[in-house]
Amino acid sequence: MLQLYHNMMDVPSRFARLCLAEAKAGAELTEMMPWARDEAFLLLNPAGTLPVLRENDGPPVCGAQVIAEYLDETRGYALGERRLMPDHPNERAETRRLMNWFLEKAVDDTAQYFIEEKIYKRLKGPSEGGGSPDSNILRAARSNLRMHLQYIGYLAERRNWLAGNRITYADLAAGAMLSVIDYMGEVPWEKEPVVKDWYQRIKSRPCFRPILADSLKGIPAANHYMDLDF
Amino acid sequence: MLQLYHNMMDVPSRFARLCLAEAKAGAELTEMMPWARDEAFLLLNPAGTLPVLRENDGPPVCGAQVIAEYLDETRGYALGERRLMPDHPNERAETRRLMNWFLEKAVDDTAQYFIEEKIYKRLKGPSEGGGSPDSNILRAARSNLRMHLQYIGYLAERRNWLAGNRITYADLAAGAMLSVIDYMGEVPWEKEPVVKDWYQRIKSRPCFRPILADSLKGIPAANHYMDLDF
Repeated sequence: MLQLYHNMMDVPSRFARLCLAEAKAGAELTEMMPWARDEAFLLLNPAGTLPVLRENDGPPVCGAQVIAEYLDETRGYALGERRLMPDHPNERAETRRLMNWFLEKAVDDTAQYFIEEKIYKRLKGPSEGGGSPDSNILRAARSNLRMHLQYIGYLAERRNWLAGNRITYADLAAGAMLSVIDYMGEVPWEKEPVVKDWYQRIKSRPCFRPILADSLKGIPAANHYMDLDF
Repeated sequence: MLQLYHNMMDVPSRFARLCLAEAKAGAELTEMMPWARDEAFLLLNPAGTLPVLRENDGPPVCGAQVIAEYLDETRGYALGERRLMPDHPNERAETRRLMNWFLEKAVDDTAQYFIEEKIYKRLKGPSEGGGSPDSNILRAARSNLRMHLQYIGYLAERRNWLAGNRITYADLAAGAMLSVIDYMGEVPWEKEPVVKDWYQRIKSRPCFRPILADSLKGIPAANHYMDLDF
């Protein structure tokens, strides 16, 4: 049995859920609050970061990209044409570069600011750093988001999917990242038709259904968040 | 032919050089200054980060961990017992977790502060942010280093090598990280005998020779830096 420690609005956690769904690997989900210090969890992952996967109470598989590699190594072959890691070493390198770009750089540049300011600050108590969003930070996050949307558009225009002709982990990583921002209604879709077209394709995949059903108590999703035709 | 864009004191770059040497893959080295904006280099790696590897002028392989995976996929089989990525998915996950820990978390927590304050600030011009080291930053870097040394000691005491019974990329990652700090004479070896014993073993490998011969003009290495018996 698979067990995933995650947070609903954490981008690497969402990516791991998408990877599990694409691999047809059901997992029991345990939700964690990223800012809460949990000694038992630190024994699993000393870095204290999400997500963490365990299989049959075995050793922890820590980190979104490490989980993606693990699922490819243990389930990839059985997926045949739907495998999300390409065969050729150069294409694998490009997939890994983009996974890293969307799950680390794009999260640091933009998604994490939105999440912290618009979601975590509302869920946290005053002693944990809760409060109102900082409009200067949100302005910077929006400006950085435009840059990242342009890069996704650049890739989507030149390739069928972001890392090449077939869908890969790179698309799930970018999709996870944008889906969190889209929950908050912060993606200017009308300005980026190429990105919108690519996102519509990825959003229509069955793996996205549970993500689109995500709902935070007291912080509802933007109106179009669930619509496949937005 | 392999070509590596690197910086001598950059931890992920050193790790890539160690991986290349262990794979018996000679590469032409091109040194880059991480703070210089180079438009041609940004076309290779839009993230602008080091290291980047190219084989036969093919597509760029960007990032230390992506390079390690690429070398394993293209040369690993031929290395037999000396292969640096284990076979079992759980051991691979642990190797990747630790690669990430030493190349990202430990670099951010400690190595990068030493490099920036004690090396880059001396190499940069005044308009690039050059100047004297900040003693508060160095104090924080030393305190974080002790925590990381304790963790390496904890792993080395329980396992033969850091990720398990055999040497893996995790050892090269930790070795690359400590070697840069050791160049500056900042590792308190006498306080960590278990770490010292582990480092002596990794430092004695032939792959380390070029790293130990590294020398920056005007910023000499600590006296014991090259000694295998320090």
